[in-house]
Amino acid sequence: MDEIYLQCAIDLASANVTRGDGGPFGAVIVCDGDIIAEGWNRVIVANDPTAHAEIVAIRAACSRKGHFHLPGCTLYTSSEPCPMCLAAAYWARVERIVFANSREQAAAIGFCDENLYGELQLPLQQRHIATCHLPLPDADLPLRRWLANPGHRCY
Amino acid sequence: MDEIYLQCAIDLASANVTRGDGGPFGAVIVCDGDIIAEGWNRVIVANDPTAHAEIVAIRAACSRKGHFHLPGCTLYTSSEPCPMCLAAAYWARVERIVFANSREQAAAIGFCDENLYGELQLPLQQRHIATCHLPLPDADLPLRRWLANPGHRCY
Repeated sequence: MDEIYLQCAIDLASANVTRGDGGPFGAVIVCDGDIIAEGWNRVIVANDPTAHAEIVAIRAACSRKGHFHLPGCTLYTSSEPCPMCLAAAYWARVERIVFANSREQAAAIGFCDENLYGELQLPLQQRHIATCHLPLPDADLPLRRWLANPGHRCY
Repeated sequence: MDEIYLQCAIDLASANVTRGDGGPFGAVIVCDGDIIAEGWNRVIVANDPTAHAEIVAIRAACSRKGHFHLPGCTLYTSSEPCPMCLAAAYWARVERIVFANSREQAAAIGFCDENLYGELQLPLQQRHIATCHLPLPDADLPLRRWLANPGHRCY
């Protein structure tokens, strides 16, 4: 069945080339044999740099489930997730990920996913986005207060 | 001024411990000396695993700007961005990132950001989420069609 669901994701990617909502990427999320959510890249039409196909699909699936975790779900995506989308899949606790095109194929048409994977591993001072660690006094107060609250929910 | 804007992000994090929308994290985005967007973690209340403070702030800033890029903007965040949020900052093309608490401090209260950075570098077969590369025939058709469309917009 993997091939069928993955082809659905690819078909969404293809439809989006015509639609023009964003890049040529699509995703579906499957739970117990049903497609519970679809997504395609909407970065351009939504003016939202986070609106990648996988993020759109994860948000839709969570909305449908009424929960921020997706146990037992598989994310099918037309191209290998970028680091943003891969990390989102971890936060969502999906069970499996299946993809068709590689990050190298995305790079070949001008997308920076491959570079981004490297960038995230660099020390702060070597990154292309200048990044400053500024440990203000008592900056960790929210963390300590949260930990001390017996009602806090983990995610 | 970095200290003032960063403290705003920390104050949003602190307020969220009381509010309970999600984890103890806050962010603001500054452009030309103005805070143009705020965000705090809303994972729990929104049932959205992507609703980290930085993502919420980036989406709000882009909505306000009417564009998917944020040139000249600085992202201030109470804690070091997780890989999802850091990659989102790259996709949004922010100019700078300033943070107070480290990923190690987040790990100390039970958040997996630090592990996630390691996980993203592992070969597919070593990851905790089973991941399958399934290169279907013609899976790259959307990529080729997108590239061949002279009207395609990059992001």
